[in-house]
Amino acid sequence: MMKARPCLFCLLFLVVVTLALGTIDSDLKRCKHQCKALQQIGEHQRKECYEMCDKYHSEKQRDEEEEPSSFLPYRGREEEEEEYGEQEKENNPFVFEDQHFITGIKTQHGRVRVLPKFTERSKLFKGIENYRFAILEANPQTFVVPNHWDADTVLFVAQGRGTLNLVRRGKRNSFNIRPGDVIRVYAGTTAYLINRDNNENLFIAKLLRSVYTPGQFEHFFGPGGRENPESFYGAFSSEILEAALNTRGDRLQRLFGQEREGVIIRASEEQIRQMSQHEEGGIWPFGGESKGSVNIFKQRPSQSNQYGQFHEVDESHYRQLEDLDISLSFGNITEGGMLGPIYSSRATKIAVVVDGEGYFEMACPHLASKSGRRQRQGSERGRETRIGLGYQKVRSRLRRGMVLIIPAGHPFAAVASTNQNLQIFCFNVNARDNEVVPLAGRNNVVSLLEREAMELGFGLPAREVEQIFRSQQEEFFFQGPGGRQQREERELGRADA
Amino acid sequence: MMKARPCLFCLLFLVVVTLALGTIDSDLKRCKHQCKALQQIGEHQRKECYEMCDKYHSEKQRDEEEEPSSFLPYRGREEEEEEYGEQEKENNPFVFEDQHFITGIKTQHGRVRVLPKFTERSKLFKGIENYRFAILEANPQTFVVPNHWDADTVLFVAQGRGTLNLVRRGKRNSFNIRPGDVIRVYAGTTAYLINRDNNENLFIAKLLRSVYTPGQFEHFFGPGGRENPESFYGAFSSEILEAALNTRGDRLQRLFGQEREGVIIRASEEQIRQMSQHEEGGIWPFGGESKGSVNIFKQRPSQSNQYGQFHEVDESHYRQLEDLDISLSFGNITEGGMLGPIYSSRATKIAVVVDGEGYFEMACPHLASKSGRRQRQGSERGRETRIGLGYQKVRSRLRRGMVLIIPAGHPFAAVASTNQNLQIFCFNVNARDNEVVPLAGRNNVVSLLEREAMELGFGLPAREVEQIFRSQQEEFFFQGPGGRQQREERELGRADA
Amino acid sequence: MMKARPCLFCLLFLVVVTLALGTIDSDLKRCKHQCKALQQIGEHQRKECYEMCDKYHSEKQRDEEEEPSSFLPYRGREEEEEEYGEQEKENNPFVFEDQHFITGIKTQHGRVRVLPKFTERSKLFKGIENYRFAILEANPQTFVVPNHWDADTVLFVAQGRGTLNLVRRGKRNSFNIRPGDVIRVYAGTTAYLINRDNNENLFIAKLLRSVYTPGQFEHFFGPGGRENPESFYGAFSSEILEAALNTRGDRLQRLFGQEREGVIIRASEEQIRQMSQHEEGGIWPFGGESKGSVNIFKQRPSQSNQYGQFHEVDESHYRQLEDLDISLSFGNITEGGMLGPIYSSRATKIAVVVDGEGYFEMACPHLASKSGRRQRQGSERGRETRIGLGYQKVRSRLRRGMVLIIPAGHPFAAVASTNQNLQIFCFNVNARDNEVVPLAGRNNVVSLLEREAMELGFGLPAREVEQIFRSQQEEFFFQGPGGRQQREERELGRADA
Repeated sequence: MMKARPCLFCLLFLVVVTLALGTIDSDLKRCKHQCKALQQIGEHQRKECYEMCDKYHSEKQRDEEEEPSSFLPYRGREEEEEEYGEQEKENNPFVFEDQHFITGIKTQHGRVRVLPKFTERSKLFKGIENYRFAILEANPQTFVVPNHWDADTVLFVAQGRGTLNLVRRGKRNSFNIRPGDVIRVYAGTTAYLINRDNNENLFIAKLLRSVYTPGQFEHFFGPGGRENPESFYGAFSSEILEAALNTRGDRLQRLFGQEREGVIIRASEEQIRQMSQHEEGGIWPFGGESKGSVNIFKQRPSQSNQYGQFHEVDESHYRQLEDLDISLSFGNITEGGMLGPIYSSRATKIAVVVDGEGYFEMACPHLASKSGRRQRQGSERGRETRIGLGYQKVRSRLRRGMVLIIPAGHPFAAVASTNQNLQIFCFNVNARDNEVVPLAGRNNVVSLLEREAMELGFGLPAREVEQIFRSQQEEFFFQGPGGRQQREERELGRADA
Repeated sequence: MMKARPCLFCLLFLVVVTLALGTIDSDLKRCKHQCKALQQIGEHQRKECYEMCDKYHSEKQRDEEEEPSSFLPYRGREEEEEEYGEQEKENNPFVFEDQHFITGIKTQHGRVRVLPKFTERSKLFKGIENYRFAILEANPQTFVVPNHWDADTVLFVAQGRGTLNLVRRGKRNSFNIRPGDVIRVYAGTTAYLINRDNNENLFIAKLLRSVYTPGQFEHFFGPGGRENPESFYGAFSSEILEAALNTRGDRLQRLFGQEREGVIIRASEEQIRQMSQHEEGGIWPFGGESKGSVNIFKQRPSQSNQYGQFHEVDESHYRQLEDLDISLSFGNITEGGMLGPIYSSRATKIAVVVDGEGYFEMACPHLASKSGRRQRQGSERGRETRIGLGYQKVRSRLRRGMVLIIPAGHPFAAVASTNQNLQIFCFNVNARDNEVVPLAGRNNVVSLLEREAMELGFGLPAREVEQIFRSQQEEFFFQGPGGRQQREERELGRADA
Repeated sequence: MMKARPCLFCLLFLVVVTLALGTIDSDLKRCKHQCKALQQIGEHQRKECYEMCDKYHSEKQRDEEEEPSSFLPYRGREEEEEEYGEQEKENNPFVFEDQHFITGIKTQHGRVRVLPKFTERSKLFKGIENYRFAILEANPQTFVVPNHWDADTVLFVAQGRGTLNLVRRGKRNSFNIRPGDVIRVYAGTTAYLINRDNNENLFIAKLLRSVYTPGQFEHFFGPGGRENPESFYGAFSSEILEAALNTRGDRLQRLFGQEREGVIIRASEEQIRQMSQHEEGGIWPFGGESKGSVNIFKQRPSQSNQYGQFHEVDESHYRQLEDLDISLSFGNITEGGMLGPIYSSRATKIAVVVDGEGYFEMACPHLASKSGRRQRQGSERGRETRIGLGYQKVRSRLRRGMVLIIPAGHPFAAVASTNQNLQIFCFNVNARDNEVVPLAGRNNVVSLLEREAMELGFGLPAREVEQIFRSQQEEFFFQGPGGRQQREERELGRADA
């Protein structure tokens, strides 16, 4: 027995080291693979090895699942995921639902929810690891306490009417915000906010890019007290505060010693009224910067037909986006309509379903193929470089509040339900020189190939390929499968009649 | 017993993997936390697990402490750290003292000391991991042998009078340097240096940014011999050298075969005289670049009053800083005075105490809260995203030669001792568009809020908040706590009299 | 026995964690070092520890070596590596030969070979980890199926005559390519290619920089079928495809349901003729971009003499390289000639031997010193910051198809065989402001030092140093050692006669 042990040690050693050098996603598979790959191991020991993998993995799974959000999503889930099974979700790191959010702040008057670092979800997201996504939700007639944070931020007002105040370079600038507004907030700006509406919640989506520790950010509250929020002034010695503020300690104690009511608090009607007296989308004259905000709905749609409209804001519309290399887009897919298939040539999209329902499909070469074909061909190493070995269909129902990651180059399509428009807002990371490439409809990329390339590429006469890729006369937005079916049914009905 | 073993294996497995994926700083705590978190483990095994954590940690501690600097700091330590206990230092990765430096070069005529990669100290420093900090110290009348290195460098002359030679693009440029000079040296430039003073040591602080392996750099000595320093010519085959230099092997052997005296060596008075005949801070005409150096003390202070002065050099003063996104600043806090609290909106400061004594405080949301309040609220995961749960006071005595990291967004203050000016020089990384935001004194950020925001933020009448945040009439530099106390004592004395 | 076990556990624990935090390269040494460093361990256990290191290492070695290329290199290996032993190769991560490539695509008509991520070879390559290198080889009269990929690419045509088609921003642009052509392909561009020659293979070297996951890229084939290549259209639901393409399912099934013949396939003479009717190196009017390609051989050589010529293309010749910070260079070393020693001040070179034979030497401070001198002085930690402790000679035979990494700052030289020109093509990463610094010949950096610096640097009279560094009148390219020897022999022969 003593002889066998050291050997088992060696193996664990190998397995552990290999795992530790890897990433979290594919641990279980790799762990077992390691067990299997070990030549000098007996069957009994291999079984032990497998069991360890399982235990390790289930432990980790539990860790990852142990933080269920205790709060409702944007709106209640009316229906269960009957259509898409367990297996599908497991293989799909691209979709974030309520349970993936962390609650950063929660009071009875609102909350801030944040997605974990994207690389915690999958190493595929390394290219966007310096970005974080958050959603602020504030009840009617509430106030978000002034604070600054160590990240550049782009805000998108998804719903509601508020007033935003930004203090930077010794000036305070206030302006009223409404749905569609896009605002860049420079790192270190002190910001506060009211929801000045009497009835509607205010929803703001935020994309943050850290200026200090990549992919992390911290909030700093000056106003505050001993707790909830704690004021950072309270972290200084009283002797320093007394000297710097030229004020006696007992008065400071009164200021910084209280327990406060939270980061998002109720404001009185009079306070709201006082803080709302600003022009909507007014000029915001920070150091000569041209505009403080821009409204995405005021931009002429770059695509528009009866099946949908597409609006965009990039550095050419809003100069403050220039150094961030971010653009924004908003797609409104008419009920029964669809968008795509398209792909973005350079940009990776962080998309939020703002309203409506529907579903989404994407061709993904990164995930294991549904047919197992890939496993036969690609080793672990080959995985990174295999070419055209196949694509997995990533498919997900869409509903309000869901977040999708759509990587550069990946073809995707989105379909609206037949009874409600589907509205999707996107932050586009790595946006400069991005091209949205159509894979169907007018000017789709296949229709631009030479006839010989069609022939050789598809192995069919060019005429046949052309016919297919030139049948759709619309562009970008099309009548969706449901709409088609309804129409066909209507037509059949008419024919029957 | 055989049954229990595999289970313990699993647990160790978990613990080890989890640790290995983490960072060094918080290992011990996390290790034990892991032990505790394991559900299926008996009490005896948990104890074993704890012991392993301790052993592992003490081993690692020993490793980290085994390289004590055998050299004196800038000046001897006159007093022990009586004020700040062990615990405080342990939790403070932001302060670097003598023992944290590595000695890169040491001869009897000088030395070069380098800080390890910042991320070796704490993962908090990931944002500055491509930067390294070094201090060169050369005795009077010495020569630093010509070499090039694979990093862009910004030099700051902290003390002494030298002559620097830079060979780039086929031209050699020499200029005399004196305290306050800032010089950018492009990667791959061949540089050599003399301390031309007869009495004073030359101190140069360097910030390096690698062009090859991030956070690492190597020196390459052409002049040299078989050893100390070894010439890189010696790494080539003699056949290659003979052909390239068109010189017989025996002559090359004479040149490259000697043992040399070190990288920093004594120069004769005549050699010093010959190499010093250059204009101070002269024009440095590399490829049309405007200026070879700039002196920070010649810049008009951006802040100045009886309690201190603040000088800055950025890309607008010195074009060669543009591609590096680095600026430099120098604060001279009068004895009994203080600076701040302030924060930098974007830049992270790497600060060196050039002269004097005092102390420093910073509000830090990253470290565990002093009150333990945070532990109650935040899980490991929540840690990255908790908002406003509190700040730890980071406090450190300051003395000559110490290095501080002050991250973007973090409020801090520095206080000079009552008997000596405190001089702090900073390299500011990520400097473009940086704003230094005052938290006390004229134009402090709280005084710029609307009255309603003061009220709601602090829960006190706006008038009371205003009074406090407008009591201090000075800006940036204030009378420090010690000065205040002295004054109060004086006033009391007068009153008594 | 129970008492001893937990302790051994601890040790393994230590060793494993330490290893896992490190990198792959120096594992074996570090592993054993760890075993040795453990104080509380008995001799028997230390032996076990050593054995585990060995097993782990040999296992890993095997993993790394288990993927031999089953394909011939550019041309067969005529001779074995008789000159350079095992030891030399092991310590040399800078040279890549056939067996290091992964085969991404292989059909009977061609193949694409890719180097693994550079950081898989050595952590030294972290600075270029976002770049990948690939070689495409297509037989005469073949077609490479249209596809796009998620990486910016620079192509260099090393051999052959083809026609390249690029579809971007709704336009297709075709142009004939020939050796020396440099073409930037934007990420997401749909590209296809023919080898229009009847006899010669087409070789294209590619440098890729990911736009999504750093250091990874994926190909997306629109044209294709059920398999080989699979079309990404096939990953969408038939309902989506039918709606988007406005085409019945049975016709789509006919299009996307076939098994195809591969990514590189045979084209008919007529197809080739149709697809070749384009001007060579013609204007390529993508969105006003000036030029679609540039030919490196049409650039006036920046260095030229009887021993060689050096051609360069950078952003000043080809605007499309500007955002990539990449330049390209081509050195043709005459038979019997040599290049260098030189170093690049900022750029790291990824060099390919395009033709000929010879050898290469480089002075490298990163690898363990040949003399062991370094071990005496530097601890593991010191390793990163030691200064001038010595250089290892990196030496490698060169033959067609080999790839070299030459880091910034590292002095190197290359020597052509005496019977064939040696042609080396380089992608230079981090190219802006790069300077090629000569270490021998006219204007070498030592000859530009002051006489006193020569004296102090070499410890010999300046006159003697000057004589040596001014003996070579040529620049950049010199008569090589073989040439020299031949000449000397000729001269001796003449003298004898």
